[in-house]
Amino acid sequence: MKLLIVGGVAGGASAAARARRLSEDAHIVLFERGPDVSFANCGLPYYVGGVIAERGKLLVTTAEKLRSWFHLDVRTQSSVEAIDRKNKTVRVRELATGREYEEKYDKLILAPGAAPLRPPIPGLDLPAVMTLRNLGDVDRIKARVDAGVKHAVVVGAGFIGLELIENFVHRGIKTTVVELQDQVLPPLDKEMTTPIVAALESRGVTVLLGDSAEGFDAAGDGVSVRLKSGKKLDAQLVILGVGVRPENKLAVDAGLDCGPRGGIRVSEHMQTSDPDIYAAGDAVEIVDFVSGDPTQVPLAGPANRQGRIAADNVFGRPTKFRGTQGTSIVGIFDRTAASTGMSEKMLRRANRSFRKIYIHPAHHAGYYPGAEGMTLKVLFDPITGRVLGAQAVGGQGVDKRIDVIAMAIQAKMTVFDLEEAELAYAPQFGSAKDPVNMAGFVASGLLRGDHPQVDVESLPGDATIVDVRTPAEFAAGHIPGAVNIPLDELRARLSEIPADRQTVVYCQVGMRGYLATRILLQHGRTVHNIGGGYRTWLLYNT
Amino acid sequence: MKLLIVGGVAGGASAAARARRLSEDAHIVLFERGPDVSFANCGLPYYVGGVIAERGKLLVTTAEKLRSWFHLDVRTQSSVEAIDRKNKTVRVRELATGREYEEKYDKLILAPGAAPLRPPIPGLDLPAVMTLRNLGDVDRIKARVDAGVKHAVVVGAGFIGLELIENFVHRGIKTTVVELQDQVLPPLDKEMTTPIVAALESRGVTVLLGDSAEGFDAAGDGVSVRLKSGKKLDAQLVILGVGVRPENKLAVDAGLDCGPRGGIRVSEHMQTSDPDIYAAGDAVEIVDFVSGDPTQVPLAGPANRQGRIAADNVFGRPTKFRGTQGTSIVGIFDRTAASTGMSEKMLRRANRSFRKIYIHPAHHAGYYPGAEGMTLKVLFDPITGRVLGAQAVGGQGVDKRIDVIAMAIQAKMTVFDLEEAELAYAPQFGSAKDPVNMAGFVASGLLRGDHPQVDVESLPGDATIVDVRTPAEFAAGHIPGAVNIPLDELRARLSEIPADRQTVVYCQVGMRGYLATRILLQHGRTVHNIGGGYRTWLLYNT
Repeated sequence: MKLLIVGGVAGGASAAARARRLSEDAHIVLFERGPDVSFANCGLPYYVGGVIAERGKLLVTTAEKLRSWFHLDVRTQSSVEAIDRKNKTVRVRELATGREYEEKYDKLILAPGAAPLRPPIPGLDLPAVMTLRNLGDVDRIKARVDAGVKHAVVVGAGFIGLELIENFVHRGIKTTVVELQDQVLPPLDKEMTTPIVAALESRGVTVLLGDSAEGFDAAGDGVSVRLKSGKKLDAQLVILGVGVRPENKLAVDAGLDCGPRGGIRVSEHMQTSDPDIYAAGDAVEIVDFVSGDPTQVPLAGPANRQGRIAADNVFGRPTKFRGTQGTSIVGIFDRTAASTGMSEKMLRRANRSFRKIYIHPAHHAGYYPGAEGMTLKVLFDPITGRVLGAQAVGGQGVDKRIDVIAMAIQAKMTVFDLEEAELAYAPQFGSAKDPVNMAGFVASGLLRGDHPQVDVESLPGDATIVDVRTPAEFAAGHIPGAVNIPLDELRARLSEIPADRQTVVYCQVGMRGYLATRILLQHGRTVHNIGGGYRTWLLYNT
Repeated sequence: MKLLIVGGVAGGASAAARARRLSEDAHIVLFERGPDVSFANCGLPYYVGGVIAERGKLLVTTAEKLRSWFHLDVRTQSSVEAIDRKNKTVRVRELATGREYEEKYDKLILAPGAAPLRPPIPGLDLPAVMTLRNLGDVDRIKARVDAGVKHAVVVGAGFIGLELIENFVHRGIKTTVVELQDQVLPPLDKEMTTPIVAALESRGVTVLLGDSAEGFDAAGDGVSVRLKSGKKLDAQLVILGVGVRPENKLAVDAGLDCGPRGGIRVSEHMQTSDPDIYAAGDAVEIVDFVSGDPTQVPLAGPANRQGRIAADNVFGRPTKFRGTQGTSIVGIFDRTAASTGMSEKMLRRANRSFRKIYIHPAHHAGYYPGAEGMTLKVLFDPITGRVLGAQAVGGQGVDKRIDVIAMAIQAKMTVFDLEEAELAYAPQFGSAKDPVNMAGFVASGLLRGDHPQVDVESLPGDATIVDVRTPAEFAAGHIPGAVNIPLDELRARLSEIPADRQTVVYCQVGMRGYLATRILLQHGRTVHNIGGGYRTWLLYNT
């Protein structure tokens, strides 16, 4: 067996290591265009900021180690330029020498990754305008930062963009982020990003939403960025982080099937339309585990799994990739935002019916010092209660709850199962009723009809809105048009709430509103609680 | 409906609140023997240490709030002394006045909790010998500590015992812990507690295992503790933390069925042997979700769920308690130990076949600063791969992995599902191959026959033991009798390993040992890797 692997980072390196574990006598060649194999892609922004101080830390493994441990034929700075499917060969160019040669294969695994999108903006090639993909890029960015950058502009408020911003701020650089969409972190639902914008602005970052770069002009030691809005931003460094596209040229040229967004089409065995060619990682089109639709998710975890599965199948083991659920996370200053499964906007786009709940719990018992707040949103099927997606934003403990719910999604569990989750509780770690349980209670109450809830964005115009918080809380800010009847006076003041129209109640985070809903329901009223209360309302109205 | 509830902490308070949400017009009486309802049981040790500075923080809710929000008839310092099942009344004694009266019920929920065991040791009633259950106890302990305690003895190295030890050390108290069993934290498997003993000893705590208190003698301002071993320990404060027993006297006197260990027997609807009486919390016998056997698990999370379910059923909603999986966690200094599902010793006791794996991953990407190590043990069915239990010990991130695996156990997932878990990865939060994935890889490799593993405690006597680490690692400590052939020399030095007998390989944490196993297997050798490597061996041999 002669196995060629194109690409030596997550998917390719995983495939190569797995292949050797399955076969001691296969000839396995790993081609990597860059000088390094298997570097820590996700660590690059932190090297710019000095959080990761040593460049060597970014080298997860080395070509030398792959050779000595795995007997791999590692060829770096070697670009695979073409595939001859008929003769089962690839054409390779050695970047250092320019020498070209052909290499035969029995099986081929493509793991070329994804490249930063470079939209056709005038001035894109100015030296101060950069993208971040590999160690060479990060060296260039860091060199420029080290040389002294006062102002930076990040175009695109995705995960890598925001991580770079955090690191620019660490380095004392005044930073502006420009995002075409009307929110940061486009994979998340907009209201969940409100605390992230607040965190950015509190650190002095200027956030420009619904705007885009139309041109870059050389100006002094840097560039002037022309925006669609007419604004001009001067910067010594511009990062383009507007997304990635699959590196599919090799596949397209070879006539392999690709999807509408460019991803190489593969079966659940990671096999392309050519049975001797497999593909893995950011370049492939895979299946969304929850929706069942094709998608492209450039994430390291799925890439590693796909590489492993591709190698399995090369050696006759019919393992399958179950699809991705797009679990992702980003830390920005002291905030964390994470997501798993489908977002509300994905569900709307797919025209799929759903319900949602919001809670705003502390990450551990409130009586133990250091409890940090978070907002957790759970999306679920309105009939079966199956968990379809979850998002959380906050500080400590966000990652844990999203991982727990990621397991629930993988297992096709329902919100009723979340009620019954038995999670580890001591006061430093959680609560006797963990946020995951609370989300289960609130969602299950909604589905059972015990706890009718209305979403902030669809408050009925003709309802009486009752704020059941204390007068002090009400005075500090409330939903326009609301009347204040504190929960502990509600039973005595029922007559103040018109019985001939529907009532909407709310409190700060939803708990007292729930109790008020129960009271009013049992008095025959038509009533809904605003899920997540005033805090949720603020997410939509800040 | 007149509902009486006995006990106002976790189970009772949850039942009362749920009952009111289900019925505005029921008369709900909550009897609590102590002066406080719903206090933060699990926070008590931290109040002793001053970590929780304000006593008021321990009051999760107040009788006043339960009255105003929930219209509950809360009667504190009221002891329910007897149940007359025929006439459906209880006899109540007001502790302040001594007045007794009868109260009628339609339904009764018992949530009396569990009391610290007080074994018949001479001198048990000396004022310096205390137990910890409620706020009164913690006030007494704290008063004594505040008055000046130089030496403390904690009898029993369970969760509460260790939490108290941490807090005693915070307060500068030289502490000795005496445990009858040969390990601390008896719910965990012994080898997993090795790092906890090390943490205790590194903070100056004396750990005496396999010993017990035989008597307490008044001595100066404190007591002298006589141990079975003959040792004598002088202390100004002794805490007895040797377990709890269900407060079942009321139930037993009323002729309700109880289990062999005293727990009140209930159906999955939390109904006792009397259909008008329900029970919830630490006093009940429930079902172990994994083993299906009856058990008693005095934990707050299940108590809350049970209280809720009892109230549901009182009001005609046939919800069920799915059983407990015993998920628990404890923090001791900078160490965390957590567990979910069955332990190895439970499995052995139940004579149930199982396999196990150990891994020693970092809690997040190693290239990002601050990665902390942990040891994760996963127990699973040897045929189906179903996850039966997991334990972890380490620093940061232990709670997350145990919670994730708790979900897997709830969903009856297998180790093959752990391989495919898609968890949130950014370098501050995890790894592209999360510890949960790694555990899945190692366990699945074992079940598939790709990665034969041998447990440390059953190393074959006649095998060649090959240490595949570097000579420097080997020199720093190795398994007696092992020969050193570093992984990167293994292929060239195969002939040094006798082919006519079995081989056992190992490395530091298991990865290189796995690679060595793959190489040797493919050369026709009979070979097993020591799961978790030298680190696991050290857990058994320290």
